[in-house]
Amino acid sequence: MKAAALEFRGSTSTPRTGVNRGVSILDFVLRLVGIIATLASAITMGTTNETLPFATRFIRFRAEYDDLPSLTFFVAANSVVCGYLFLSLALSILHIVRSAARRSRIILVLFDTVMLGLLTAGASAAAAIVYLAHKGNSRANWIAICRQYNSFCERISGSLIGSFVGIPVFVLLIILSAVALSRRGSHK
Amino acid sequence: MKAAALEFRGSTSTPRTGVNRGVSILDFVLRLVGIIATLASAITMGTTNETLPFATRFIRFRAEYDDLPSLTFFVAANSVVCGYLFLSLALSILHIVRSAARRSRIILVLFDTVMLGLLTAGASAAAAIVYLAHKGNSRANWIAICRQYNSFCERISGSLIGSFVGIPVFVLLIILSAVALSRRGSHK
Repeated sequence: MKAAALEFRGSTSTPRTGVNRGVSILDFVLRLVGIIATLASAITMGTTNETLPFATRFIRFRAEYDDLPSLTFFVAANSVVCGYLFLSLALSILHIVRSAARRSRIILVLFDTVMLGLLTAGASAAAAIVYLAHKGNSRANWIAICRQYNSFCERISGSLIGSFVGIPVFVLLIILSAVALSRRGSHK
Repeated sequence: MKAAALEFRGSTSTPRTGVNRGVSILDFVLRLVGIIATLASAITMGTTNETLPFATRFIRFRAEYDDLPSLTFFVAANSVVCGYLFLSLALSILHIVRSAARRSRIILVLFDTVMLGLLTAGASAAAAIVYLAHKGNSRANWIAICRQYNSFCERISGSLIGSFVGIPVFVLLIILSAVALSRRGSHK
């Protein structure tokens, strides 16, 4: 809460502060949604494995998410974003209490933007691999492994949902911060 | 230039305006960098193909970028982002002339954030596939096609660079907009 000393210089009694408080509360709620979504994604993907009950032409009969590096990155990205969102709740609460904060909002925009990039990168890389697992690619001679590993593929497809919920959450968070920053006008 | 009528309500003689003008000029330059980077990426990837001079165990001997859907998405994403950046130059110039603009900056933050997501998604999906082309995956029985298609793989790897230059450009653009919005304080 070190930022508190830096930020509290506005009055807290004008209507604009009320709007900013509403924005800050929405920011807090969106972060909670983001935490749940990314945590669900990371856990679902991180616990995915399937052992086939019969022999196929594969040498190994067990599929785990960390056989595919992109899916490992997906779990790491979602975990990092989830941890960041949890830590950022502190600043979000600070903004509800002290709506006129400026520097801490800019810092949040910076980290939110970087985390949006990380989450999108993880989700997109995993989606590319999941698509390949479902469809394969005849030109590159890559087979669709989902024909063998059905339940594995369902899990890895489903775990993408959390990330793709998290992405619009971050877009909204950045817009809300921009709106809050622009509304600070009368508090200098 | 419709936004001009909406936005021009600040004075233009305070020191803060000077800082905002500097920020707006930097914004303009960054957009130019982004246009060049994404255009280079789209063109490099979009013109990639290789015909092998000898027979291999592949049925077809020609590799094109659009054999892999993720690379097609990469070209589309880079083209869209490049087109957006070109159009956004108009608003960027408006912000240099009229530093006190607020709503048009928020609109820019919104679109910049969405475009950051699109560009990251395209680059990340392509990177996942390029990695697979280089390394293959023994667990999924996906072979490393780069052993056959050397020059194809070099081109698709190189074309990622432009996108990965574009991503930090967008992060900077969003931060600059946030700073400019927060500095507007004295112009209400």
